[in-house]
Amino acid sequence: MILAKVVGTVVSTQKEQSMEGLKFLILQQVDLEAKATGGFVIAADAVDAGIGEYVLYATGSSARQTTRTDKKPCDAVVMAIVDNWEVQGKFKYKKGQDD
Amino acid sequence: MILAKVVGTVVSTQKEQSMEGLKFLILQQVDLEAKATGGFVIAADAVDAGIGEYVLYATGSSARQTTRTDKKPCDAVVMAIVDNWEVQGKFKYKKGQDD
Amino acid sequence: MILAKVVGTVVSTQKEQSMEGLKFLILQQVDLEAKATGGFVIAADAVDAGIGEYVLYATGSSARQTTRTDKKPCDAVVMAIVDNWEVQGKFKYKKGQDD
Amino acid sequence: MILAKVVGTVVSTQKEQSMEGLKFLILQQVDLEAKATGGFVIAADAVDAGIGEYVLYATGSSARQTTRTDKKPCDAVVMAIVDNWEVQGKFKYKKGQDD
Amino acid sequence: MILAKVVGTVVSTQKEQSMEGLKFLILQQVDLEAKATGGFVIAADAVDAGIGEYVLYATGSSARQTTRTDKKPCDAVVMAIVDNWEVQGKFKYKKGQDD
Repeated sequence: MILAKVVGTVVSTQKEQSMEGLKFLILQQVDLEAKATGGFVIAADAVDAGIGEYVLYATGSSARQTTRTDKKPCDAVVMAIVDNWEVQGKFKYKKGQDD
Repeated sequence: MILAKVVGTVVSTQKEQSMEGLKFLILQQVDLEAKATGGFVIAADAVDAGIGEYVLYATGSSARQTTRTDKKPCDAVVMAIVDNWEVQGKFKYKKGQDD
Repeated sequence: MILAKVVGTVVSTQKEQSMEGLKFLILQQVDLEAKATGGFVIAADAVDAGIGEYVLYATGSSARQTTRTDKKPCDAVVMAIVDNWEVQGKFKYKKGQDD
Repeated sequence: MILAKVVGTVVSTQKEQSMEGLKFLILQQVDLEAKATGGFVIAADAVDAGIGEYVLYATGSSARQTTRTDKKPCDAVVMAIVDNWEVQGKFKYKKGQDD
Repeated sequence: MILAKVVGTVVSTQKEQSMEGLKFLILQQVDLEAKATGGFVIAADAVDAGIGEYVLYATGSSARQTTRTDKKPCDAVVMAIVDNWEVQGKFKYKKGQDD
Protein backbone atom coordinates (compact mmCIF):
# COMPACT_ATOMS: atom_id res chain seq x y z
CA MET A 1 0.00 0.00 0.00
CA ILE A 2 1.06 3.59 -0.51
CA LEU A 3 0.89 6.52 1.93
CA ALA A 4 -0.94 9.54 0.54
CA LYS A 5 -2.91 12.66 1.46
CA VAL A 6 -6.39 13.40 0.14
CA VAL A 7 -6.26 16.78 -1.63
CA GLY A 8 -9.26 16.87 -3.95
CA THR A 9 -11.99 15.19 -5.94
CA VAL A 10 -12.80 14.37 -9.57
CA VAL A 11 -16.37 14.54 -10.90
CA SER A 12 -17.60 12.44 -13.81
CA THR A 13 -21.17 11.92 -15.00
CA GLN A 14 -20.45 9.90 -18.16
CA LYS A 15 -18.75 6.72 -16.94
CA GLU A 16 -18.92 2.93 -16.89
CA GLN A 17 -22.27 2.24 -15.24
CA SER A 18 -20.83 0.13 -12.41
CA MET A 19 -18.88 3.18 -11.18
CA GLU A 20 -22.10 5.04 -10.23
CA GLY A 21 -22.02 6.18 -6.60
CA LEU A 22 -18.27 5.79 -6.14
CA LYS A 23 -16.36 8.92 -5.09
CA PHE A 24 -13.08 9.68 -6.90
CA LEU A 25 -10.43 11.16 -4.61
CA ILE A 26 -7.24 12.92 -5.71
CA LEU A 27 -4.37 11.59 -3.62
CA GLN A 28 -0.91 13.12 -3.33
CA GLN A 29 1.76 10.58 -2.46
CA VAL A 30 3.80 11.54 0.61
CA ASP A 31 7.17 10.49 2.01
CA LEU A 32 7.82 9.23 5.54
CA GLU A 33 8.01 12.85 6.76
CA ALA A 34 4.44 13.41 5.45
CA LYS A 35 5.69 15.72 2.66
CA ALA A 36 4.19 15.48 -0.84
CA THR A 37 6.56 13.79 -3.29
CA GLY A 38 5.04 15.08 -6.51
CA GLY A 39 3.21 11.93 -7.57
CA PHE A 40 -0.57 11.67 -7.47
CA VAL A 41 -3.31 9.19 -8.33
CA ILE A 42 -7.11 9.09 -8.52
CA ALA A 43 -8.60 6.47 -6.19
CA ALA A 44 -12.08 5.28 -5.32
CA ASP A 45 -13.07 5.85 -1.70
CA ALA A 46 -13.99 2.79 0.39
CA VAL A 47 -13.75 4.39 3.83
CA ASP A 48 -15.29 7.89 3.63
CA ALA A 49 -11.96 9.70 3.75
CA GLY A 50 -12.02 13.50 3.81
CA ILE A 51 -9.87 16.24 2.29
CA GLY A 52 -6.66 16.66 4.29
CA GLU A 53 -6.62 13.16 5.74
CA TYR A 54 -3.66 10.82 5.36
CA VAL A 55 -4.63 7.45 3.96
CA LEU A 56 -3.38 4.16 2.56
CA TYR A 57 -4.41 3.11 -0.91
CA ALA A 58 -4.13 -0.25 -2.65
CA THR A 59 -3.71 -0.75 -6.39
CA GLY A 60 -4.35 -3.35 -9.07
CA SER A 61 -6.78 -6.23 -8.56
CA SER A 62 -6.49 -5.66 -4.80
CA ALA A 63 -8.32 -2.37 -5.35
CA ARG A 64 -11.43 -4.43 -6.15
CA GLN A 65 -11.42 -6.35 -2.84
CA THR A 66 -13.73 -3.93 -1.04
CA THR A 67 -17.52 -4.00 -0.82
CA ARG A 68 -17.78 -0.78 -2.83
CA THR A 69 -15.33 -1.64 -5.63
CA ASP A 70 -16.02 -5.35 -6.23
CA LYS A 71 -16.02 -6.26 -9.97
CA LYS A 72 -15.58 -2.62 -11.03
CA PRO A 73 -13.00 -1.05 -13.39
CA CYS A 74 -11.21 0.48 -10.43
CA ASP A 75 -7.43 0.10 -10.01
CA ALA A 76 -6.84 2.20 -6.88
CA VAL A 77 -8.83 2.35 -3.66
CA VAL A 78 -8.47 4.16 -0.34
CA MET A 79 -8.88 1.31 2.15
CA ALA A 80 -7.59 2.88 5.39
CA ILE A 81 -7.44 6.29 7.08
CA VAL A 82 -4.15 6.71 8.91
CA ASP A 83 -4.05 7.59 12.62
CA ASN A 84 -0.28 7.72 12.90
CA TRP A 85 2.96 6.18 11.76
CA GLU A 86 6.35 5.78 13.33
CA VAL A 87 9.83 5.06 11.98
CA GLN A 88 12.58 3.64 14.20
CA GLY A 89 10.35 4.14 17.25
CA LYS A 90 9.73 7.85 16.56
CA PHE A 91 6.33 9.22 15.49
CA LYS A 92 6.47 10.89 12.09
CA TYR A 93 2.77 11.75 11.92
CA LYS A 94 -0.08 11.86 14.43
CA LYS A 95 -3.60 12.69 13.29
CA GLY A 96 -4.98 15.88 14.81
CA GLN A 97 -1.50 17.08 15.64
CA ASP A 98 0.46 17.15 12.35
CA ASP A 99 -2.35 18.03 9.91
CA MET B 1 -6.97 5.66 -11.94
CA ILE B 2 -4.93 8.14 -13.95
CA LEU B 3 -5.98 11.53 -15.34
CA ALA B 4 -5.34 11.89 -19.07
CA LYS B 5 -6.42 13.71 -22.22
CA VAL B 6 -7.54 11.92 -25.40
CA VAL B 7 -5.27 13.10 -28.23
CA GLY B 8 -5.53 10.46 -30.94
CA THR B 9 -6.35 6.97 -32.14
CA VAL B 10 -4.52 3.82 -33.22
CA VAL B 11 -5.83 1.62 -36.05
CA SER B 12 -5.12 -2.11 -36.27
CA THR B 13 -6.72 -4.67 -38.57
CA GLN B 14 -4.55 -7.69 -37.67
CA LYS B 15 -5.22 -8.31 -33.98
CA GLU B 16 -6.41 -10.84 -31.42
CA GLN B 17 -9.94 -11.63 -32.57
CA SER B 18 -11.61 -10.64 -29.29
CA MET B 19 -10.37 -7.07 -29.78
CA GLU B 20 -12.63 -6.58 -32.86
CA GLY B 21 -14.82 -3.51 -32.47
CA LEU B 22 -12.84 -1.92 -29.66
CA LYS B 23 -11.48 1.57 -30.28
CA PHE B 24 -7.88 2.30 -29.28
CA LEU B 25 -7.39 5.81 -27.91
CA ILE B 26 -4.05 7.58 -27.44
CA LEU B 27 -4.04 9.20 -24.00
CA GLN B 28 -1.60 11.80 -22.76
CA GLN B 29 -1.19 11.79 -19.00
CA VAL B 30 -1.78 15.20 -17.40
CA ASP B 31 -0.88 16.77 -14.07
CA LEU B 32 -3.32 18.44 -11.67
CA GLU B 33 -3.06 21.67 -13.70
CA ALA B 34 -4.29 19.74 -16.79
CA LYS B 35 -0.87 20.03 -18.47
CA ALA B 36 0.59 17.05 -20.38
CA THR B 37 3.40 15.36 -18.43
CA GLY B 38 5.07 13.56 -21.31
CA GLY B 39 3.77 10.07 -20.61
CA PHE B 40 1.18 8.39 -22.82
CA VAL B 41 -0.67 5.09 -23.11
CA ILE B 42 -3.01 3.33 -25.54
CA ALA B 43 -6.36 2.47 -23.93
CA ALA B 44 -9.57 0.81 -25.06
CA ASP B 45 -12.62 3.05 -24.97
CA ALA B 46 -15.54 1.98 -22.75
CA VAL B 47 -17.39 5.28 -22.63
CA ASP B 48 -17.29 6.84 -26.14
CA ALA B 49 -14.71 9.47 -25.25
CA GLY B 50 -13.74 12.00 -27.93
CA ILE B 51 -10.52 13.73 -28.96
CA GLY B 52 -9.76 16.59 -26.55
CA GLU B 53 -11.72 15.21 -23.61
CA TYR B 54 -10.19 14.65 -20.19
CA VAL B 55 -10.73 11.14 -18.89
CA LEU B 56 -9.84 8.62 -16.23
CA TYR B 57 -8.34 5.31 -17.24
CA ALA B 58 -7.84 2.13 -15.23
CA THR B 59 -5.05 -0.39 -15.79
CA GLY B 60 -4.26 -4.06 -15.22
CA SER B 61 -6.99 -6.63 -14.62
CA SER B 62 -9.31 -3.77 -13.64
CA ALA B 63 -9.21 -2.70 -17.29
CA ARG B 64 -11.21 -5.84 -18.09
CA GLN B 65 -14.10 -5.03 -15.71
CA THR B 66 -16.20 -3.25 -18.32
CA THR B 67 -18.82 -4.72 -20.64
CA ARG B 68 -16.68 -3.98 -23.68
CA THR B 69 -13.34 -5.30 -22.39
CA ASP B 70 -14.39 -8.40 -20.41
CA LYS B 71 -11.98 -11.34 -20.95
CA LYS B 72 -9.95 -9.44 -23.57
CA PRO B 73 -6.16 -8.82 -23.74
CA CYS B 74 -6.69 -5.21 -22.73
CA ASP B 75 -4.65 -3.64 -19.90
CA ALA B 76 -5.90 -0.04 -20.03
CA VAL B 77 -9.45 1.27 -20.40
CA VAL B 78 -11.07 4.70 -20.41
CA MET B 79 -13.89 4.21 -17.88
CA ALA B 80 -14.93 7.82 -17.15
CA ILE B 81 -15.09 11.19 -18.91
CA VAL B 82 -14.15 13.98 -16.52
CA ASP B 83 -16.48 16.95 -15.91
CA ASN B 84 -14.20 18.76 -13.49
CA TRP B 85 -11.72 18.34 -10.69
CA GLU B 86 -10.74 20.47 -7.75
CA VAL B 87 -7.73 20.58 -5.44
CA GLN B 88 -7.93 22.19 -1.98
CA GLY B 89 -11.38 23.53 -2.83
CA LYS B 90 -10.28 25.27 -6.03
CA PHE B 91 -11.34 24.10 -9.50
CA LYS B 92 -8.38 23.11 -11.66
CA TYR B 93 -10.42 22.04 -14.68
CA LYS B 94 -14.02 22.53 -15.80
CA LYS B 95 -15.26 20.91 -18.99
CA GLY B 96 -16.35 23.39 -21.63
CA GLN B 97 -14.37 26.14 -19.97
CA ASP B 98 -10.75 24.94 -19.79
CA ASP B 99 -10.56 22.83 -22.97
CA MET C 1 -1.45 -1.00 -24.12
CA ILE C 2 1.97 0.20 -25.17
CA LEU C 3 3.23 1.12 -28.65
CA ALA C 4 6.39 -0.73 -29.65
CA LYS C 5 8.44 -1.96 -32.59
CA VAL C 6 9.47 -5.58 -33.06
CA VAL C 7 13.28 -5.66 -33.31
CA GLY C 8 14.33 -9.21 -32.47
CA THR C 9 13.68 -12.60 -30.92
CA VAL C 10 14.77 -14.60 -27.88
CA VAL C 11 15.33 -18.37 -28.07
CA SER C 12 14.91 -20.67 -25.07
CA THR C 13 14.79 -24.46 -25.04
CA GLN C 14 14.73 -25.00 -21.25
CA LYS C 15 11.52 -23.36 -20.07
CA GLU C 16 8.23 -23.91 -18.26
CA GLN C 17 6.54 -26.61 -20.34
CA SER C 18 3.40 -24.57 -21.07
CA MET C 19 5.53 -22.03 -22.94
CA GLU C 20 6.40 -24.56 -25.68
CA GLY C 21 5.55 -23.20 -29.12
CA LEU C 22 5.26 -19.57 -28.08
CA LYS C 23 7.54 -17.10 -29.86
CA PHE C 24 9.38 -14.51 -27.75
CA LEU C 25 9.68 -11.13 -29.45
CA ILE C 26 11.99 -8.29 -28.42
CA LEU C 27 10.01 -5.06 -28.47
CA GLN C 28 11.42 -1.56 -28.33
CA GLN C 29 9.00 0.97 -26.89
CA VAL C 30 8.42 3.99 -29.15
CA ASP C 31 7.07 7.49 -28.65
CA LEU C 32 4.24 9.08 -30.63
CA GLU C 33 6.74 10.04 -33.37
CA ALA C 34 7.62 6.31 -33.77
CA LYS C 35 11.09 6.86 -32.29
CA ALA C 36 12.58 4.30 -29.87
CA THR C 37 12.54 5.57 -26.27
CA GLY C 38 15.16 3.26 -24.83
CA GLY C 39 12.87 0.86 -23.00
CA PHE C 40 12.31 -2.70 -24.19
CA VAL C 41 10.42 -5.81 -23.15
CA ILE C 42 10.14 -9.47 -24.19
CA ALA C 43 6.60 -10.40 -25.23
CA ALA C 44 4.87 -13.53 -26.48
CA ASP C 45 3.45 -13.26 -29.97
CA ALA C 46 -0.31 -13.77 -30.40
CA VAL C 47 -0.68 -12.28 -33.88
CA ASP C 48 2.30 -13.42 -35.99
CA ALA C 49 4.06 -10.07 -35.91
CA GLY C 50 7.28 -9.70 -37.89
CA ILE C 51 10.56 -7.87 -37.36
CA GLY C 52 10.14 -4.16 -38.10
CA GLU C 53 6.42 -4.03 -37.49
CA TYR C 54 4.82 -1.61 -35.04
CA VAL C 55 2.58 -3.32 -32.54
CA LEU C 56 0.55 -2.93 -29.36
CA TYR C 57 1.34 -5.14 -26.40
CA ALA C 58 -0.63 -5.77 -23.22
CA THR C 59 0.87 -6.63 -19.84
CA GLY C 60 -0.04 -8.36 -16.59
CA SER C 61 -2.93 -10.78 -16.34
CA SER C 62 -4.35 -9.25 -19.53
CA ALA C 63 -1.39 -10.80 -21.35
CA ARG C 64 -2.99 -14.19 -20.69
CA GLN C 65 -6.31 -13.35 -22.36
CA THR C 66 -5.34 -14.70 -25.79
CA THR C 67 -5.78 -18.20 -27.16
CA ARG C 68 -2.03 -18.75 -27.26
CA THR C 69 -1.15 -17.42 -23.78
CA ASP C 70 -4.09 -18.66 -21.66
CA LYS C 71 -2.96 -19.94 -18.22
CA LYS C 72 0.73 -19.49 -19.06
CA PRO C 73 3.47 -17.63 -17.13
CA CYS C 74 3.42 -14.84 -19.68
CA ASP C 75 3.16 -11.19 -18.58
CA ALA C 76 3.43 -9.40 -21.95
CA VAL C 77 1.76 -10.25 -25.26
CA VAL C 78 1.66 -8.66 -28.71
CA MET C 79 -2.09 -8.55 -29.39
CA ALA C 80 -2.29 -6.14 -32.37
CA ILE C 81 -0.22 -5.11 -35.37
CA VAL C 82 -0.55 -1.37 -35.98
CA ASP C 83 -1.67 0.01 -39.37
CA ASN C 84 -1.41 3.67 -38.41
CA TRP C 85 -1.92 6.18 -35.65
CA GLU C 86 -2.79 9.83 -35.60
CA VAL C 87 -2.46 12.59 -33.02
CA GLN C 88 -4.60 15.77 -33.18
CA GLY C 89 -5.88 14.69 -36.61
CA LYS C 90 -2.40 14.26 -38.11
CA PHE C 91 -0.94 10.88 -39.08
CA LYS C 92 2.23 10.10 -37.16
CA TYR C 93 2.78 6.64 -38.66
CA LYS C 94 1.38 4.78 -41.66
CA LYS C 95 2.41 1.20 -42.31
CA GLY C 96 4.27 0.70 -45.58
CA GLN C 97 5.13 4.39 -45.70
CA ASP C 98 7.00 5.20 -42.48
CA ASP C 99 8.80 1.87 -41.86
CA MET D 1 9.84 -10.17 -4.77
CA ILE D 2 11.67 -7.15 -3.43
CA LEU D 3 14.33 -6.98 -0.69
CA ALA D 4 13.50 -4.52 2.07
CA LYS D 5 14.09 -3.66 5.72
CA VAL D 6 11.30 -3.22 8.25
CA VAL D 7 11.66 0.29 9.74
CA GLY D 8 8.26 1.16 11.21
CA THR D 9 4.52 0.69 11.46
CA VAL D 10 1.33 2.47 10.38
CA VAL D 11 -1.76 2.53 12.61
CA SER D 12 -5.29 2.85 11.23
CA THR D 13 -8.57 2.36 13.08
CA GLN D 14 -10.96 3.46 10.30
CA LYS D 15 -10.40 0.96 7.47
CA GLU D 16 -12.04 -1.61 5.22
CA GLN D 17 -13.42 -4.15 7.70
CA SER D 18 -11.55 -7.12 6.24
CA MET D 19 -8.25 -5.44 7.15
CA GLU D 20 -8.95 -5.78 10.91
CA GLY D 21 -6.12 -7.54 12.69
CA LEU D 22 -3.55 -7.08 9.93
CA LYS D 23 -0.35 -5.24 10.86
CA PHE D 24 0.94 -2.58 8.47
CA LEU D 25 4.73 -2.46 8.22
CA ILE D 26 6.81 0.34 6.74
CA LEU D 27 9.46 -1.21 4.50
CA GLN D 28 12.50 0.55 3.10
CA GLN D 29 13.75 -0.99 -0.13
CA VAL D 30 17.44 -1.95 -0.02
CA ASP D 31 20.09 -2.68 -2.63
CA LEU D 32 22.24 -5.81 -2.79
CA GLU D 33 24.65 -4.22 -0.26
CA ALA D 34 21.73 -3.93 2.21
CA LYS D 35 21.70 -0.11 1.92
CA ALA D 36 18.38 1.78 1.74
CA THR D 37 17.65 3.02 -1.79
CA GLY D 38 15.13 5.71 -0.90
CA GLY D 39 11.97 3.86 -1.92
CA PHE D 40 9.48 2.59 0.64
CA VAL D 41 6.14 0.81 0.76
CA ILE D 42 3.51 -0.17 3.33
CA ALA D 43 2.96 -3.94 3.48
CA ALA D 44 0.78 -6.29 5.48
CA ASP D 45 2.69 -8.73 7.67
CA ALA D 46 2.18 -12.45 7.04
CA VAL D 47 5.20 -13.75 8.96
CA ASP D 48 5.53 -11.74 12.19
CA ALA D 49 8.49 -9.70 11.01
CA GLY D 50 10.07 -7.26 13.47
CA ILE D 51 11.61 -3.79 13.19
CA GLY D 52 15.14 -4.03 11.79
CA GLU D 53 14.65 -7.34 10.00
CA TYR D 54 15.37 -7.81 6.30
CA VAL D 55 12.45 -9.31 4.44
CA LEU D 56 11.01 -10.15 1.04
CA TYR D 57 7.67 -8.70 0.04
CA ALA D 58 5.37 -9.62 -2.83
CA THR D 59 3.03 -7.21 -4.62
CA GLY D 60 -0.18 -7.21 -6.64
CA SER D 61 -2.61 -10.14 -6.56
CA SER D 62 0.23 -12.32 -5.24
CA ALA D 63 0.05 -10.29 -2.03
CA ARG D 64 -3.32 -11.92 -1.37
CA GLN D 65 -1.98 -15.50 -1.55
CA THR D 66 -1.34 -15.81 2.18
CA THR D 67 -3.68 -17.05 4.90
CA ARG D 68 -3.82 -13.60 6.47
CA THR D 69 -4.38 -11.52 3.32
CA ASP D 70 -6.73 -13.74 1.28
CA LYS D 71 -9.50 -11.72 -0.46
CA LYS D 72 -8.41 -8.46 1.19
CA PRO D 73 -7.59 -5.06 -0.39
CA CYS D 74 -3.91 -5.62 0.24
CA ASP D 75 -1.35 -5.14 -2.57
CA ALA D 76 1.92 -5.79 -0.68
CA VAL D 77 2.75 -8.50 1.85
CA VAL D 78 5.86 -9.52 3.76
CA MET D 79 6.01 -13.26 3.04
CA ALA D 80 9.58 -14.14 4.12
CA ILE D 81 12.15 -13.03 6.69
CA VAL D 82 15.63 -13.14 5.18
CA ASP D 83 18.45 -15.13 6.83
CA ASN D 84 21.12 -14.18 4.32
CA TRP D 85 21.85 -13.52 0.69
CA GLU D 86 24.88 -13.93 -1.49
CA VAL D 87 25.98 -12.52 -4.83
CA GLN D 88 28.61 -14.23 -6.99
CA GLY D 89 29.34 -16.66 -4.12
CA LYS D 90 29.99 -13.90 -1.57
CA PHE D 91 27.68 -13.19 1.39
CA LYS D 92 26.26 -9.68 1.27
CA TYR D 93 24.12 -10.01 4.39
CA LYS D 94 23.92 -12.48 7.26
CA LYS D 95 21.26 -12.10 9.93
CA GLY D 96 22.66 -11.46 13.41
CA GLN D 97 25.93 -10.27 11.93
CA ASP D 98 25.11 -7.40 9.54
CA ASP D 99 22.11 -5.86 11.32
CA MET E 1 8.95 -10.79 -19.69
CA ILE E 2 12.24 -9.25 -18.66
CA LEU E 3 15.78 -10.31 -19.59
CA ALA E 4 18.04 -10.86 -16.58
CA LYS E 5 21.11 -12.68 -15.32
CA VAL E 6 21.11 -14.93 -12.27
CA VAL E 7 23.74 -13.57 -9.84
CA GLY E 8 22.85 -14.96 -6.44
CA THR E 9 20.39 -16.48 -3.98
CA VAL E 10 18.37 -15.44 -0.93
CA VAL E 11 17.83 -17.81 2.01
CA SER E 12 14.79 -17.62 4.29
CA THR E 13 13.65 -20.14 6.88
CA GLN E 14 10.77 -18.13 8.40
CA LYS E 15 8.31 -17.65 5.57
CA GLU E 16 4.73 -18.21 4.40
CA GLN E 17 4.38 -21.99 4.56
CA SER E 18 3.43 -22.41 0.89
CA MET E 19 6.85 -21.03 -0.11
CA GLU E 20 8.66 -24.07 1.37
CA GLY E 21 10.92 -25.70 -1.22
CA LEU E 22 11.01 -22.76 -3.62
CA LYS E 23 14.42 -21.31 -4.43
CA PHE E 24 14.82 -17.52 -4.42
CA LEU E 25 17.16 -16.24 -7.12
CA ILE E 26 18.71 -12.77 -7.30
CA LEU E 27 18.34 -11.49 -10.87
CA GLN E 28 20.12 -8.51 -12.35
CA GLN E 29 18.23 -6.92 -15.22
CA VAL E 30 20.29 -6.61 -18.42
CA ASP E 31 20.02 -4.54 -21.58
CA LEU E 32 20.05 -5.89 -25.13
CA GLU E 33 23.88 -5.96 -25.06
CA ALA E 34 23.70 -8.30 -22.02
CA LYS E 35 25.04 -5.59 -19.69
CA ALA E 36 23.58 -5.14 -16.20
CA THR E 37 21.34 -2.05 -15.99
CA GLY E 38 21.39 -1.60 -12.23
CA GLY E 39 17.95 -2.97 -11.45
CA PHE E 40 17.44 -6.28 -9.68
CA VAL E 41 14.63 -8.46 -8.40
CA ILE E 42 14.17 -11.64 -6.35
CA ALA E 43 12.36 -14.36 -8.29
CA ALA E 44 11.27 -17.91 -7.59
CA ASP E 45 12.90 -20.53 -9.80
CA ALA E 46 10.64 -22.69 -11.99
CA VAL E 47 13.29 -24.05 -14.36
CA ASP E 48 16.40 -24.90 -12.29
CA ALA E 49 18.40 -21.92 -13.50
CA GLY E 50 22.01 -21.59 -12.31
CA ILE E 51 24.24 -18.69 -11.32
CA GLY E 52 25.53 -16.90 -14.41
CA GLU E 53 22.72 -17.96 -16.71
CA TYR E 54 20.61 -15.48 -18.66
CA VAL E 55 16.92 -15.96 -18.12
CA LEU E 56 13.45 -14.54 -18.69
CA TYR E 57 11.25 -13.79 -15.72
CA ALA E 58 7.53 -13.03 -15.55
CA THR E 59 5.86 -10.83 -12.92
CA GLY E 60 2.49 -10.32 -11.28
CA SER E 61 -0.24 -12.96 -11.37
CA SER E 62 1.55 -14.53 -14.35
CA ALA E 63 4.34 -15.49 -11.93
CA ARG E 64 1.90 -17.96 -10.37
CA GLN E 65 1.17 -19.83 -13.62
CA THR E 66 3.86 -22.46 -13.12
CA THR E 67 3.58 -25.82 -11.38
CA ARG E 68 5.92 -24.68 -8.62
CA THR E 69 4.39 -21.27 -7.90
CA ASP E 70 0.65 -21.96 -8.26
CA LYS E 71 -1.43 -20.18 -5.56
CA LYS E 72 1.68 -18.88 -3.76
CA PRO E 73 2.58 -15.32 -2.69
CA CYS E 74 5.13 -15.10 -5.49
CA ASP E 75 5.21 -12.12 -7.87
CA ALA E 76 8.26 -12.96 -10.00
CA VAL E 77 9.30 -16.28 -11.52
CA VAL E 78 12.11 -17.44 -13.78
CA MET E 79 10.21 -19.35 -16.47
CA ALA E 80 12.85 -19.71 -19.22
CA ILE E 81 16.62 -20.06 -19.55
CA VAL E 82 17.86 -18.12 -22.56
CA ASP E 83 19.93 -19.81 -25.32
CA ASN E 84 20.43 -16.70 -27.39
CA TRP E 85 18.84 -13.50 -28.63
CA GLU E 86 19.24 -11.43 -31.73
CA VAL E 87 18.38 -7.85 -32.65
CA GLN E 88 17.99 -6.73 -36.29
CA GLY E 89 19.30 -10.13 -37.43
CA LYS E 90 22.50 -9.94 -35.36
CA PHE E 91 23.19 -12.16 -32.36
CA LYS E 92 23.65 -10.17 -29.16
CA TYR E 93 24.13 -13.16 -26.86
CA LYS E 94 24.83 -16.86 -27.39
CA LYS E 95 24.97 -19.20 -24.43
CA GLY E 96 28.38 -20.83 -23.92
CA GLN E 97 30.03 -18.11 -25.96
CA ASP E 98 29.16 -14.78 -24.34
CA ASP E 99 28.96 -15.82 -20.66
